[in-house]
Amino acid sequence: MGRLTGGDPSLLRRINSSVVLRALRGTDAPPSLTFTDLVQGTGLSRPTVEGVVEGLIETGLVAEAPPETSPSGDARRGRPARRFRFCAEAGHLLGIEIGAHRIAAVLSDLTGRTVGTATREVDETAGADERLEQARGTVADVLRRSCVPRDSLRAVGVGSPGIVRADGSVRLSTALPGWTGLPLADRLRRSFRCPVLVENDANAAALAEHWKGAAVGTDDVVFVLAGLSPGAGSLIGGRLHRGFGGAAGEIGALHLLGREARPENLLSTTGEPLHPLDEPAVARVFALARHGDVRATEAVERFIRRLVHDVAALVLALDPELVVVGGWAYGLDGVLEPLRCELERYCLRPPRVALSVLGEAAAATGALRLALDHMEEQLFAVET
Amino acid sequence: MGRLTGGDPSLLRRINSSVVLRALRGTDAPPSLTFTDLVQGTGLSRPTVEGVVEGLIETGLVAEAPPETSPSGDARRGRPARRFRFCAEAGHLLGIEIGAHRIAAVLSDLTGRTVGTATREVDETAGADERLEQARGTVADVLRRSCVPRDSLRAVGVGSPGIVRADGSVRLSTALPGWTGLPLADRLRRSFRCPVLVENDANAAALAEHWKGAAVGTDDVVFVLAGLSPGAGSLIGGRLHRGFGGAAGEIGALHLLGREARPENLLSTTGEPLHPLDEPAVARVFALARHGDVRATEAVERFIRRLVHDVAALVLALDPELVVVGGWAYGLDGVLEPLRCELERYCLRPPRVALSVLGEAAAATGALRLALDHMEEQLFAVET
Repeated sequence: MGRLTGGDPSLLRRINSSVVLRALRGTDAPPSLTFTDLVQGTGLSRPTVEGVVEGLIETGLVAEAPPETSPSGDARRGRPARRFRFCAEAGHLLGIEIGAHRIAAVLSDLTGRTVGTATREVDETAGADERLEQARGTVADVLRRSCVPRDSLRAVGVGSPGIVRADGSVRLSTALPGWTGLPLADRLRRSFRCPVLVENDANAAALAEHWKGAAVGTDDVVFVLAGLSPGAGSLIGGRLHRGFGGAAGEIGALHLLGREARPENLLSTTGEPLHPLDEPAVARVFALARHGDVRATEAVERFIRRLVHDVAALVLALDPELVVVGGWAYGLDGVLEPLRCELERYCLRPPRVALSVLGEAAAATGALRLALDHMEEQLFAVET
Repeated sequence: MGRLTGGDPSLLRRINSSVVLRALRGTDAPPSLTFTDLVQGTGLSRPTVEGVVEGLIETGLVAEAPPETSPSGDARRGRPARRFRFCAEAGHLLGIEIGAHRIAAVLSDLTGRTVGTATREVDETAGADERLEQARGTVADVLRRSCVPRDSLRAVGVGSPGIVRADGSVRLSTALPGWTGLPLADRLRRSFRCPVLVENDANAAALAEHWKGAAVGTDDVVFVLAGLSPGAGSLIGGRLHRGFGGAAGEIGALHLLGREARPENLLSTTGEPLHPLDEPAVARVFALARHGDVRATEAVERFIRRLVHDVAALVLALDPELVVVGGWAYGLDGVLEPLRCELERYCLRPPRVALSVLGEAAAATGALRLALDHMEEQLFAVET
């Protein structure tokens, strides 16, 4: 409220450009629009629309489209109206997940439509240099396969485990060796001539599910990256809630306060610790439980109880409309019902609970959404 | 982003009015300003400022002030510049806390400066009608004592325990008898000719500490209303986070999921339940603990452990810059150090921790802030 200043005419011009561009690239928009369409669609005057469109053509984001012929193929009377289209191919955007076991990359055009993907496995013990090398390799793969030149990239988003600072460096990451303190955005910027944005992987996944997953149309969402030490990403009013220091949703530490089982003992059936990132071993426990193994069943119950408690803490603190559970490929179907049931019992206003739609693609897709958002902000810079 | 529409000239006019009014009533502003002062302070043109000031005089919110004489008392050459001032006395605002034991009311002028307060005790077993009657009585007390006529009120804010709907009705309140389902705002509106806003008491207290308490200048705050079943109010980026259904921060239910002590047994030294709202009994336990009583000390330790866990859940979910602890008058000084220490140990990014500055006045003061915010929104309606 205190930051209001006197009216700014150039602000109006930028708002108008934004409105016209959004009309041209809207998901429901036809492939091209006339000045008359744009006047009707935006509520702006015709001279304003004409001026704005000329400006957008100069940026390369809008081009004149061939005039439309009438459905019957007959020539119309008079000169056909000029038509304009958004140039989705005027650049590309890239989303990358750098995870414990996997690097995933998604490449899109300027509307966010996917034009290519690539993944590589990486060892959970790999150091930062090796992991970054694999990430660069995955990017090279997807660009080559999609025949997109590197300098077509307008922005790159990255999702990775840990607390990420505003400058794209990693404040703390317990999951990846050598990751804490890494200037991740700076290291990756050497490979690109465009902005590189870094975000926590659960935060990125929350953005992704809201964009094209289980949370489409729902603006108050908690995405839980289930695991032995779960993390979460939250959208409040459709915007990412990072917290004051970027650590919002790092709920995995809650149980350190009690005298309860440490994460690595949660799913152990032998008393020996189970490495939190040892996904094949975790999958074996879930499989044994499905086949009736008593100790495995107990271990899975312990795991579910912990997850329910962590999710309940998030739900009570934030009161989201929807909780989306994702992250692991194994055993999550068995988690949903107990989670729903316990939240119904104990939360004063229980949220809906759903499984991730995007699955393993969630973090990379969210990183792509970050890149898309950044490009739009750069183009319009309407909001301060 | 999708809600942007074309530029609106009347929006600019309203922004300009808002900017001029804020300059006139700013906390650091001198008692009156000239057109020249306003032009310099706002960056608006002189004709714009003149037009806006005329409009504000018509609303009664701005008045012409007597011309200034020079410090030496000499008459200046020529006609002295016209001066204008904000009319803080053109109306009043009221904040009311309706609590389990107490009704508190704070009356202010249009800048939010307190001009009167009143409190009444109320029995924790009182029904809704009796409690509302006491609230009306407290309002009558403060208006009479301050010699402010009822029709001078521009807005009334109310803070009360429970989950409050957007329409000001109580969705759920376990603390006050007969409160669940009560159309609280509607019931109170009959006593006033101005808008009545209702908010959860912990949410109101968070607003108050941000306005004039422990959280001034800090926009990411969790206010914890400590008690046997604690509640919390959160500000994110300086705005109240209510949650999708108004239940954000109702962390007291977290322990129902475990098999741990129920709230009423937490501070019990006899094994007999202690009523969560029996403040004198709770105060006795804290006093006994200070004098070295073993069972009381154990009870207080149990209470602190629970509070630390609940606050940790809020901190991990939200990652605030600051946690403010308030609500109870007793024993809170002993809570701060263990809380700081445990949050330092277990939170990836520990927040600052502070005691409430406003104490028992927090919820009523926050309710007053709500009334002030509402009046400003009505006046300017710049933000959608």
